[in-house]
Amino acid sequence: MSPKITTELLKQLRQVMKSPKYVQEPIQAYIVPSGDAHQSEYMAPCDCRRAFISGFDGSAGTAIVTEQHAAMWTDGRYFLQAAHQMDNNWTLMRMGLKDTPTQEDWLVSVLPEGSKVGVDPFIIPADQWKSMSKALRSAGHDLVPVKENLIDTIWTDCPQRPCKPLIPLDLSYTGVSWRDKIVALRSKMAERKVLWFVVTALDEVAWLFNLRGSDVEYNPVFFAYAVIGMNTIRLFIDGDRIMDPAVREHLQLDSTLEPEFKIHVMPYGSILSELQAVGAGLSPKEKVWLSDKASYALTEAVPKAYRYLTLYTPICIAKAVKNASETEGMRRAHIKDAVALCELFNWLEQEVPKGTVTEIIAADKAEEFRSQQKDFVELSFATISSTGPNGAIIHYTPVPETNRTLSVNEIYLLDSGAQYKDGTTDVTRTMHFGTPSAYEKECFTYVLKGHIAVSAAIFPNGTKGHLLDSFARSALWDCGLDYLHGTGHGVGSFLNVHEGPCGISYKTFADEPLEAGMIVSDEPGYYEDGSFGIRIENVVLVVPAETKYNFKNRGSLTFEPLTLVPIQTKMIDVNLLTQKECNWVNSYHQKCREVVGAELERQGRQEALRWLTRETEPLVKVQ
Amino acid sequence: MSPKITTELLKQLRQVMKSPKYVQEPIQAYIVPSGDAHQSEYMAPCDCRRAFISGFDGSAGTAIVTEQHAAMWTDGRYFLQAAHQMDNNWTLMRMGLKDTPTQEDWLVSVLPEGSKVGVDPFIIPADQWKSMSKALRSAGHDLVPVKENLIDTIWTDCPQRPCKPLIPLDLSYTGVSWRDKIVALRSKMAERKVLWFVVTALDEVAWLFNLRGSDVEYNPVFFAYAVIGMNTIRLFIDGDRIMDPAVREHLQLDSTLEPEFKIHVMPYGSILSELQAVGAGLSPKEKVWLSDKASYALTEAVPKAYRYLTLYTPICIAKAVKNASETEGMRRAHIKDAVALCELFNWLEQEVPKGTVTEIIAADKAEEFRSQQKDFVELSFATISSTGPNGAIIHYTPVPETNRTLSVNEIYLLDSGAQYKDGTTDVTRTMHFGTPSAYEKECFTYVLKGHIAVSAAIFPNGTKGHLLDSFARSALWDCGLDYLHGTGHGVGSFLNVHEGPCGISYKTFADEPLEAGMIVSDEPGYYEDGSFGIRIENVVLVVPAETKYNFKNRGSLTFEPLTLVPIQTKMIDVNLLTQKECNWVNSYHQKCREVVGAELERQGRQEALRWLTRETEPLVKVQ
Repeated sequence: MSPKITTELLKQLRQVMKSPKYVQEPIQAYIVPSGDAHQSEYMAPCDCRRAFISGFDGSAGTAIVTEQHAAMWTDGRYFLQAAHQMDNNWTLMRMGLKDTPTQEDWLVSVLPEGSKVGVDPFIIPADQWKSMSKALRSAGHDLVPVKENLIDTIWTDCPQRPCKPLIPLDLSYTGVSWRDKIVALRSKMAERKVLWFVVTALDEVAWLFNLRGSDVEYNPVFFAYAVIGMNTIRLFIDGDRIMDPAVREHLQLDSTLEPEFKIHVMPYGSILSELQAVGAGLSPKEKVWLSDKASYALTEAVPKAYRYLTLYTPICIAKAVKNASETEGMRRAHIKDAVALCELFNWLEQEVPKGTVTEIIAADKAEEFRSQQKDFVELSFATISSTGPNGAIIHYTPVPETNRTLSVNEIYLLDSGAQYKDGTTDVTRTMHFGTPSAYEKECFTYVLKGHIAVSAAIFPNGTKGHLLDSFARSALWDCGLDYLHGTGHGVGSFLNVHEGPCGISYKTFADEPLEAGMIVSDEPGYYEDGSFGIRIENVVLVVPAETKYNFKNRGSLTFEPLTLVPIQTKMIDVNLLTQKECNWVNSYHQKCREVVGAELERQGRQEALRWLTRETEPLVKVQ
Repeated sequence: MSPKITTELLKQLRQVMKSPKYVQEPIQAYIVPSGDAHQSEYMAPCDCRRAFISGFDGSAGTAIVTEQHAAMWTDGRYFLQAAHQMDNNWTLMRMGLKDTPTQEDWLVSVLPEGSKVGVDPFIIPADQWKSMSKALRSAGHDLVPVKENLIDTIWTDCPQRPCKPLIPLDLSYTGVSWRDKIVALRSKMAERKVLWFVVTALDEVAWLFNLRGSDVEYNPVFFAYAVIGMNTIRLFIDGDRIMDPAVREHLQLDSTLEPEFKIHVMPYGSILSELQAVGAGLSPKEKVWLSDKASYALTEAVPKAYRYLTLYTPICIAKAVKNASETEGMRRAHIKDAVALCELFNWLEQEVPKGTVTEIIAADKAEEFRSQQKDFVELSFATISSTGPNGAIIHYTPVPETNRTLSVNEIYLLDSGAQYKDGTTDVTRTMHFGTPSAYEKECFTYVLKGHIAVSAAIFPNGTKGHLLDSFARSALWDCGLDYLHGTGHGVGSFLNVHEGPCGISYKTFADEPLEAGMIVSDEPGYYEDGSFGIRIENVVLVVPAETKYNFKNRGSLTFEPLTLVPIQTKMIDVNLLTQKECNWVNSYHQKCREVVGAELERQGRQEALRWLTRETEPLVKVQ
């Protein structure tokens, strides 16, 4: 990796920062966050502005350019990568270290008195604008919105915003029509006494209209906004994709409909003016509901007195609770995914000893097997295929410079998943193709105990996921081990592999209670820097539990694993398992064998079936 | 309980609400919160203004009186009690029920346009003022501070503010002199770049100066404020108690001292004007540190730009971490407390079958035995002595109307504690003096498993207590049982039995990480409405743990029980315990027998010693 030379680019940026063409008054600093206008986790190439200006393309980072300085804030995962990718024009601000200033403090320390700091109001969420603006104002500076994105003005070969075809999903996948989703949304709006709801997150637009796209890699979404009134529906979307007859039919664009279900399609770029028009027409007590993560630009379009902001939107909460059709789809997707992984692991077992399989080859092979499955669309995130010391880098993705060959002497960790038309998968298995050491088995077994503790946990209705996080750590803690990431995240249904509002983490305090139908991951791990990484991840469905006393009819919940891929028993030290844990593994493997075995049989994959049968032999615990 | 007749009182209050003698303009509503000027949990009688005006004397409640209405907000614990104690003038607002309006919403619904709502600015914390004021302003009303407390103006026989003698604690109890505490505090102030610190919580004043008092029942504190500058110390306290030679000597009031350690004693009532003078003399960047729970009056005395507010003060955090002298004192106190309880339980065993012991008699007897111990000062809270169905009322205290006779057919729950000069205790034991049912034993054993899971937990440095809460519930959850209170609270050292900033609760999100030297309670329970209550509570000390891999030198923690009172083995279903849990009980009982046994022996309490020896016989688990 050689750093990107940014001298000329920064010169150009500093020119437009003073150009009356773009700014009313010259600005002394320009902030380039890593987000897009929808606060997405994954970016389309045209939105990777921070990477363009700096060269640093990690997933998290904020650049600030002043007349004299250029600085980049990022976290511990990316210190090394950012240092490699950026040239001398840039100062790396290592977040989390004691002496690293905050963006606000740094700005105050370098700016001349009474400076103006610019930012694209579509990219910065309203809550971040608020705190940044307050900090700058108290030091005598101003945060100002710059309408035209200044990076775009100097990015001559900026890729086009993607505008790929839409995929309508019928009822067999979604279980609920978009009309019924609108009805439910309006009833939530009525409950909160709001007249308008603005849909800004891409997966929320996709979910609401039962449409999918491919504008962003790994995320089956498309660039659009929606504004839902009590009697109107406006969908802001570009391109001729809306002219596709299947899409028109799906959205009933050419049918005679009751006016309240008539969708008005408008250009993507007209959201701001339309929302301003809505805002201007409001009378007292008429509120507009927005996520408090929506952009400053859209939030400001609604006069403050009329805004109703919440952390989670009603769509986010409804989307998290999967209905029967979605759950069945997720089950099917996970069975197909398991078939692909049985094929892969069987293949790896034969190929790894030859010394010819690299991390990249293994990742490609996993994709190849997945792509053979029905309704496969794409991967759900960049495959983490890591062996030996690379496994200890939690967010590793193999690239040619780091690509390592799998061997019978190292632990191999594969965290991968796919988008199928019927569901989204995300699974991690940790394998050894030779003979693991006693220490490796010990660590693996503690991680497994944690995985089981969460998966088998029974808890009353109303419990939030963060209350389960310590269950995943208890066995590790007892021996003085831990892992520095959360235990689980929400998973979409043929949607984003990470979604709110639920999760299992020591960090998340604003999570919503777990409910039957929610789907999360259960993925404790252990990482030994410089040697190996272990993680065991299933996607699990929240289901009602049966208990002896049933919480005085408050009811209770537990998890059912959707992922059905064997956990390598070679890595387990059976002596460290309780009988109950041992039984859990055996009954899990029994289910893998039955359910995935039947599908392997059906698909005529005899070799993989033999592998599955061998890998699901019951553990025997010597009493 | 007959209700208090409040017609005349309310008439008088409504008169002073319009009297120019007390208010600049008439106010249309007056709020009477239950707090004092220090946000204390326990009140002195002169501060029980809400109880005086309404008759309702539960620990939590807010009264609001308008020209037409009088309403009382309280929570589920007190619905019955409040309904009994208040006459028809009052409307009970049952908090937590769906249809109950918030105070703000109710005020907005009943007040004429442009109303003024008054409150004593010393009683309302700044953060509550802020939210209440905002809500009223947005509806066109004003929250106004009323300097003179209007209840006091009509409370003709209001008791005097207590002004009891002070108890100086020497180094053998405190471990650190008040001078060294001031030095440490000033260094924290320098770190945060603040010039002044205002001590408003009573236990913080007491801790800082190594003084105790008895102005408030159960809490060895005294009414005072302090303002600490980098070179000055001001102590605001009334009465001639400061003339006591021992106190003068302790505070070195008559010695020649470096000016920065000279304590300026000022009248309690002069805090506001002194703080205003401090505020007026500040120049930019000179900050004053206050708790964000400090009263609106004191917070407002400092201009907004100069305020530095934090949830926990540096004193609160320092006070929570007990030093070696405090820890040793706590150990001694708990041994003495165990002696008293061995005596009590031995006595109960003999007396209960006679049918002559009521809850009140048992509570009194517990106090009698405790008062025989060295350095006993008073109880640390009102004893919860409850049998049968009364045990299911979590915050029960026996009164003649509810007083029940202990019997061999019911479970007895005793939650009690004391203040000794060397430490504070708080212990709950649940006993059966006959033969418990299988179901009672089952529930007790789950609670015990939860108690052990927390007590024996090992966790890395930096872990917050709320991450341990689910450990206490897991065994109950597995069978569909739960309890609706937190698992533990911080405990003071000869100070308040409840203190921040640490705890173990599903509710507490703002707790500080646990540190070696902190002391918390571990008290899971189970309550069966109308039948029985079970709780097992030890006070435990956070201590370093030894683990196999030691968290890569991050270090780890666990708990050491300070409470050493046998857990009734008759109530345990040994078959439900794991071998590890069984060993925990046996080694705990072994320690009770050794440590408390030696003290019983020394005090010549042979009968209680025999009881202890019998009650600490090891459990035997049939394999």
